[in-house]
Amino acid sequence: MTERLSIDIRRCLTDSGEVRGLTQESLDEWAPRLEAARQAVIGASGTGMMGFTELPFAEPSAFTAFAEQRRGTFDDLLVIGIGGSALGTIALSTALLPGRKDEVGPVDAGRPRLHVLDNIDPDETYGLLERLDPRRTLVNVISKSGTTAESMAGYLVVRERIESALGTEALSERLVFTTDPSEGILGGIGRHLGVPMFALPPGVGGRFSVLSSVGLLPAALCGMDVDGLLAGARDAAAWFDGTSGWENPAVAFAGIQFLEDTVFGRRVSVMMPYSARLRDMADWFRQLWAESLGKETDRQGRRVNVGPLPVKALGATDQHSQLQLYSEGPDDKVVTFLGVAEFDHEVPIPAPGPEAEPLAYLSGHSLAELLWAEQKATAWALAQKGRPSLTITLPRVDAFSVGALIYVLEMATAIAGDLYDVDAFDQPGVELAKRATNALMGRPGYEDLAARID
Amino acid sequence: MTERLSIDIRRCLTDSGEVRGLTQESLDEWAPRLEAARQAVIGASGTGMMGFTELPFAEPSAFTAFAEQRRGTFDDLLVIGIGGSALGTIALSTALLPGRKDEVGPVDAGRPRLHVLDNIDPDETYGLLERLDPRRTLVNVISKSGTTAESMAGYLVVRERIESALGTEALSERLVFTTDPSEGILGGIGRHLGVPMFALPPGVGGRFSVLSSVGLLPAALCGMDVDGLLAGARDAAAWFDGTSGWENPAVAFAGIQFLEDTVFGRRVSVMMPYSARLRDMADWFRQLWAESLGKETDRQGRRVNVGPLPVKALGATDQHSQLQLYSEGPDDKVVTFLGVAEFDHEVPIPAPGPEAEPLAYLSGHSLAELLWAEQKATAWALAQKGRPSLTITLPRVDAFSVGALIYVLEMATAIAGDLYDVDAFDQPGVELAKRATNALMGRPGYEDLAARID
Repeated sequence: MTERLSIDIRRCLTDSGEVRGLTQESLDEWAPRLEAARQAVIGASGTGMMGFTELPFAEPSAFTAFAEQRRGTFDDLLVIGIGGSALGTIALSTALLPGRKDEVGPVDAGRPRLHVLDNIDPDETYGLLERLDPRRTLVNVISKSGTTAESMAGYLVVRERIESALGTEALSERLVFTTDPSEGILGGIGRHLGVPMFALPPGVGGRFSVLSSVGLLPAALCGMDVDGLLAGARDAAAWFDGTSGWENPAVAFAGIQFLEDTVFGRRVSVMMPYSARLRDMADWFRQLWAESLGKETDRQGRRVNVGPLPVKALGATDQHSQLQLYSEGPDDKVVTFLGVAEFDHEVPIPAPGPEAEPLAYLSGHSLAELLWAEQKATAWALAQKGRPSLTITLPRVDAFSVGALIYVLEMATAIAGDLYDVDAFDQPGVELAKRATNALMGRPGYEDLAARID
Repeated sequence: MTERLSIDIRRCLTDSGEVRGLTQESLDEWAPRLEAARQAVIGASGTGMMGFTELPFAEPSAFTAFAEQRRGTFDDLLVIGIGGSALGTIALSTALLPGRKDEVGPVDAGRPRLHVLDNIDPDETYGLLERLDPRRTLVNVISKSGTTAESMAGYLVVRERIESALGTEALSERLVFTTDPSEGILGGIGRHLGVPMFALPPGVGGRFSVLSSVGLLPAALCGMDVDGLLAGARDAAAWFDGTSGWENPAVAFAGIQFLEDTVFGRRVSVMMPYSARLRDMADWFRQLWAESLGKETDRQGRRVNVGPLPVKALGATDQHSQLQLYSEGPDDKVVTFLGVAEFDHEVPIPAPGPEAEPLAYLSGHSLAELLWAEQKATAWALAQKGRPSLTITLPRVDAFSVGALIYVLEMATAIAGDLYDVDAFDQPGVELAKRATNALMGRPGYEDLAARID
């Protein structure tokens, strides 16, 4: 059996150090509540907005077949999407295609560069489109309804660029849509232009969609190991279903985060990968955690204004930026280290010349060993200051482990929703700004709102 | 006169909306305290660790002359540094050399690609060094003392690579050091190998060093407008010296952040640029703010454990990730929007075809207008939920404005240090993890500590 990731919560416990925190006894006290949350999540799996639990069991052949068919016809894949339509793909590509975006010169067949346009910055958009050759670029537009202003504006800009360079008939060959194909604006455009379309599965919110067509089509087009991602997620699903209480990684993660916030007042949840390839997993998690748990009302409609603050940091780099605050500032944070047991390359540190004798202690070690030492040293040093941390360790950064990590964190989010007693699957708080944007852009029907904005 | 940036604190005031916050009266009450902080900072300028105030007035010709001399001899500049030796350069290059890193094919003379190795991730390091041609790469190693384990390990790896490809004699031509040239390990290596060296000015901490040799040498080597950066900083210095109270942008920024934290319990300071080119300014600011203000003890040695939490977000993208939490979660955040009045490219949004009539409201506008609308809509929507924000607007993203912004935020940090009554220029909390890393790496003299780490 492929090795599983591990989660270590020891440095959250007051028994083993200076941390003001949980004891073995309090873990036991909370176990039944956590198990009730797990059972509630299992009971809801696959229903309502819990459709993400079914994604690992879907058949990815439609994506891989399309990718095989288009293989060699493009050097660059441009994904246009925002939020949940972009963050998963960015995280996957940073983890599984390291350095691909920076490749220079001609690309090999089946190894296109990937660019994700998840913003409307005009300078950035202009620069990116200047660099891309319309004849050798495939564009994947992702939007469920086709009403997201940012993605649709990007689509209109890119569409005109393709059309003026290659003619209208090229659109069906240079574009592929991920959307609701039967309803919505983008589906209508796709039918009109004859653009190939992939459906978004029902009951899957944007931030839970990375293992659907949203993430898997770009993954297949760029040659990622799609089967490995799903196999890892399936293994995590079996693990989740078969393991109760604190032994369950999703339950343990959610339980610690919830208790650190609500019992000990540690509202800030720092995710700090000690792996550059996992850095954008922390950004994907930021959306998952913030949008799911940051809520004004609980499930009974009472005003609660809850929600932990997910923060991204990167080891060892941010030891030289954030560790001072984490060590000495307010005791309102819990750090999740995201470590890797085995890197693809160790990179030995060579011996210094005689002119640099004080550096001799580094040689004989590797960069991998130094990075592990930094991670371990930081967790220990935080504990000496009474600051809690937990550590998730991946056996290595590969599709299986990344698929498993995604599933574990998605399930942890569902569990945390139950613990906080909020709806983890809606996002009512973003509507007002969307409507105000429409008003400021002069969209018909928003005149009254436009008059109210000062 | 070149146009200055502006700062607008209106949406922090309770007078003008739903925000629980400051009133015009309370602004007036606090003005004398802020002015006292400004006078204290002016009094300390150029002394102790306030050396950063002198940087805008230094002569950059050594950097530009070296850059001119090396022009055309390298296609890639590799900077090896971490924390304050890296974040400023990354921020400058994202702002002033947009897209440069992604350029493919041969580069023009004087327009090298820039890579900053500010971590020791072995896979990342391996991949980057595989892509770089030692014959066409110039390496700038930055470390004051030469004891920073991460940067020195990176140096040893890169040094061997150059040596094995090109021979020992090539080192003096492919390397340039930014360090203390007379003392320290790196200075000794440089003298031994005949490597050109640039000095770090005294009294300037790493996080305040971007306008010194640390940031300006890479800037000059990549063809940034070094004179413009310094001119912007000098203008901001004159502005700071000549303007009292809330009219002073550094004072206003520091005052708002301090009062939101200490009076209203809003400890989280989100910096949210609505400009992709300014995104890494938020990362640079994260170190500046966290490391300067996150302190265990105040200036009288009393234990206080203070420090706001700087958080990086990016508009419009993070509206689809963090806005839900910022709108509906705990009222513990103040958002600083970082906007741009004029982009280099507007990027008009083309008219949709008849199949996409509901998108017609977007056309006739530009991506720049849509981005402004999103920023304004988000500030307004947050205010409707009682959440404060302030807005800094740059006339455009150019060297002058970026230099001014850097200086304003550095001065704001010094002011905030006075308001929080902490030493804004030390970082005692990072030492323990450094020593623990040494112990785990088997450095002689750390045996006792190694035995204590569990």
